[in-house]
Amino acid sequence: MTKQISIQDILLNQIQIPVELFLAYKDLGLNEKEVMLLLQIQRFLQDRVDFPTPDQLAAYVTMDEKECAHLLRALIQKDMLAIKQQEREGEKLSEAYCLTPLWNKLFSSDIQQQEASTDGTIF
Amino acid sequence: MTKQISIQDILLNQIQIPVELFLAYKDLGLNEKEVMLLLQIQRFLQDRVDFPTPDQLAAYVTMDEKECAHLLRALIQKDMLAIKQQEREGEKLSEAYCLTPLWNKLFSSDIQQQEASTDGTIF
Amino acid sequence: MTKQISIQDILLNQIQIPVELFLAYKDLGLNEKEVMLLLQIQRFLQDRVDFPTPDQLAAYVTMDEKECAHLLRALIQKDMLAIKQQEREGEKLSEAYCLTPLWNKLFSSDIQQQEASTDGTIF
Amino acid sequence: MTKQISIQDILLNQIQIPVELFLAYKDLGLNEKEVMLLLQIQRFLQDRVDFPTPDQLAAYVTMDEKECAHLLRALIQKDMLAIKQQEREGEKLSEAYCLTPLWNKLFSSDIQQQEASTDGTIF
Repeated sequence: MTKQISIQDILLNQIQIPVELFLAYKDLGLNEKEVMLLLQIQRFLQDRVDFPTPDQLAAYVTMDEKECAHLLRALIQKDMLAIKQQEREGEKLSEAYCLTPLWNKLFSSDIQQQEASTDGTIF
Repeated sequence: MTKQISIQDILLNQIQIPVELFLAYKDLGLNEKEVMLLLQIQRFLQDRVDFPTPDQLAAYVTMDEKECAHLLRALIQKDMLAIKQQEREGEKLSEAYCLTPLWNKLFSSDIQQQEASTDGTIF
Repeated sequence: MTKQISIQDILLNQIQIPVELFLAYKDLGLNEKEVMLLLQIQRFLQDRVDFPTPDQLAAYVTMDEKECAHLLRALIQKDMLAIKQQEREGEKLSEAYCLTPLWNKLFSSDIQQQEASTDGTIF
Repeated sequence: MTKQISIQDILLNQIQIPVELFLAYKDLGLNEKEVMLLLQIQRFLQDRVDFPTPDQLAAYVTMDEKECAHLLRALIQKDMLAIKQQEREGEKLSEAYCLTPLWNKLFSSDIQQQEASTDGTIF
């Protein structure tokens, strides 16, 4: 009667979220409902559902379809979320959510290499 | 002027969250504020801060200290969060948050090995 | 000319491996080739390729197909890897690799709940 | 007698590795011993041991201290690994391993934002 879970199931079914999001969402002007909606979108993306509808999202959050649609619009207007056109092989153009604006805000737009002063002579 | 980020920084600063939490928190009767509070606790635990205060938590969520304390109590009463006594070497007993009740609810209390019918003769 | 990578690409394309594997594989009697073969299998499983052939594996390791097949057999005989029969909906029975024997060896077969002495009266 | 493990222990004790490493290390000219040595370094870094000695590394791989030192030198010469000077607050300059050269080779040195053609008018 109980659902059984293996270590393997746990390992293969996780979402990775930058610590930075937890540290800074408040400063970015986001609230918990908005963050969870973004994380639900990330989960759908990981599962290769690129453009979940407000209705699909509403099944997993404590908001109805209308509130989800409203928040999605607001997140796009605040430039935390984007919609991009994408082409999958053999298919016509489709839309996909893209969290790149959020990550860029969190990490700055200049992702750069760390300077590494190599010194290979110590051994 | 921009904060620089390396791939290494991204890799080493993430939180892993079971997909199951995103699929089922609504059914468990949790809302977004409660889930984010639990995830913030998980972040503190990962950073080896075992017992963040309501005040420490309030710095990262859109709730004040009082609302955090209220929600923490509620989460413990709903058996989503626990406080355990722990001993670190050379130190006296201290308290630590423990998300085990939440994971047990998500995964059932019977974590078990997958059955594996081994067949080593195919090659 | 350069391949561009986004933070999103990095976040969505990772493998999670228990630290315990890195700490204990030597004590389990595994060498680096065997561990990497197991991790390559984990990667295929995450990508929903449940039963990569020695030939498919050989494309990503410094071993030829024959050596891969030999090591796979050895891993099964050492009970680090298993093959299970699985049924996907609407499909006939197929085989799948299963790393459960490895995780069980690393974590013991009794995965259990942490004891949590709840004390909800502190705030 | 058995070691008990909780879901929480599993969640908090993992290493995240880009899938790209598993796909491309062979093409980069690395073998399994070298990759595992790099991953062991990553594990030490995650545990805030910034400059593990060949002796410390040898405890976890099927190589002795001398072979580890030799491989580390080779990895630095191949520009897969670097040593950087770092300053921790209140401490004098110390050395730390840095996997940035490896990630740069895997992902190219131009990490860039994905283009996102925002369209906020669909709901």
